[in-house]
Amino acid sequence: MKIISVLFLLATAVATCHGQDSVENGLEYQILPLRLKSGSGGQHIQGITCSSWRLAVETHNIINWKTVPQECEGYIGNYILGDQYRGDSKAVNREAYFYVRDLNLTKDGKNIWVFDIDETSLSNLPYYAENGFGSTPYNDTAFNEWVNLGMAPVLPETKKLYKKLLSFGIKIVFLTGRPESQRAITTKNLNDAGYYQWEKLILKDKEQYKGKTAVTYKSTERKKLEQQGYRIIGNIGDQWSDILGYSTGDRTFKLPDPLYYIA
Amino acid sequence: MKIISVLFLLATAVATCHGQDSVENGLEYQILPLRLKSGSGGQHIQGITCSSWRLAVETHNIINWKTVPQECEGYIGNYILGDQYRGDSKAVNREAYFYVRDLNLTKDGKNIWVFDIDETSLSNLPYYAENGFGSTPYNDTAFNEWVNLGMAPVLPETKKLYKKLLSFGIKIVFLTGRPESQRAITTKNLNDAGYYQWEKLILKDKEQYKGKTAVTYKSTERKKLEQQGYRIIGNIGDQWSDILGYSTGDRTFKLPDPLYYIA
Repeated sequence: MKIISVLFLLATAVATCHGQDSVENGLEYQILPLRLKSGSGGQHIQGITCSSWRLAVETHNIINWKTVPQECEGYIGNYILGDQYRGDSKAVNREAYFYVRDLNLTKDGKNIWVFDIDETSLSNLPYYAENGFGSTPYNDTAFNEWVNLGMAPVLPETKKLYKKLLSFGIKIVFLTGRPESQRAITTKNLNDAGYYQWEKLILKDKEQYKGKTAVTYKSTERKKLEQQGYRIIGNIGDQWSDILGYSTGDRTFKLPDPLYYIA
Repeated sequence: MKIISVLFLLATAVATCHGQDSVENGLEYQILPLRLKSGSGGQHIQGITCSSWRLAVETHNIINWKTVPQECEGYIGNYILGDQYRGDSKAVNREAYFYVRDLNLTKDGKNIWVFDIDETSLSNLPYYAENGFGSTPYNDTAFNEWVNLGMAPVLPETKKLYKKLLSFGIKIVFLTGRPESQRAITTKNLNDAGYYQWEKLILKDKEQYKGKTAVTYKSTERKKLEQQGYRIIGNIGDQWSDILGYSTGDRTFKLPDPLYYIA
């Protein structure tokens, strides 16, 4: 199965890409020529580097973009397969841990932390590695086929935070844009990735939120949680739409994601 | 005068730092050994790289920090003196231009754009280059001595945006945390830097906003502008406190600044 070999390749790439050429040695296939471009940011796109494009995306200056610029496919591939993506994820999750560690929480079982799923708790990198690292237009059918395999690997730095939060007695709520029809496979995938315990897993009712943005959907669902008596201590996601709007929580955390944008 | 030689050195450093060693050649003094550390992010600080620290700062994950980590002084110095800082600034200003270019604005003289001053319109880099690139604690006396020289250079990518906005008939409002007592020198410095025209220059009334955050001060002043009938088409600053709160404007833009944090 093709996806399996990609998973293997990804693991190998992540393990070996310290040397810029090593991923090209001894592998039957390669996802991309994983060479770093010269300079600090890879190739230029319309007068800016891919590095500047990525920062502008992460800081919500560039919004509503449809695809990674074609010229940046290689740069984004290198970034996301290499150490830096994991390091950037670690910096965010670690900061969330520092924040929660120093709180003096009421132990009444009402403290929750909201986690997004895709590119927050689980990674769709095997899919994106086969689809131009976000540089090709989103294909709903193909993406859902991938999700329905239930094989998305864990994002390890997020899982560390998840475990810490559980140890502090904070309950976990997963709030995802995935539809209700993917509840069973998502539950299985979360379990396989090492997420065994949660208070709620909220998936999108596609009828109710038809034509609504992710900001509206997620804000509405978070407000419901507050109305049920929960306190949202923290909220983490890879999209700005995970953490903007209302009922955002006492503090929000934005994980890196240069692969796609959801309004 | 010491500050002059620093200005010269900065110009030289910016002009020559493409070759990592060139800044060390032929200069009597050097601000820092401007070598890039190995890897994409410089040295490690508590298990994360300076590159990850910077991204987490720019994305508002790390907040309320007092100084640049000591280990990252060299990394931040390299970043801010090199091409990448200017490129990152360009990406943001360019996006602001794309946004405003495509608007269909009512031509009634009520459209304004809010500009922060320090590290947005003018650069205090000569000061920070002499003060550890943000790695030493903020010194109010020394910083104000620098400001009162009125020698802060322009941030060229911001000035490009400023000019474009004027050409679209949008009025400029400067809104700064600098106190009223610095109005004359700030006006002179803005003029010297090529900013000749504005609707308002709002400086901080230190009595009125004593003990208030920058978010409160700036939100209050922006709300007053709206009450006066202005429409805030855009709002640009280097601090999250420039663009959070209320009356933030139709769209906000966050310029890079890894040197200091203002709540």
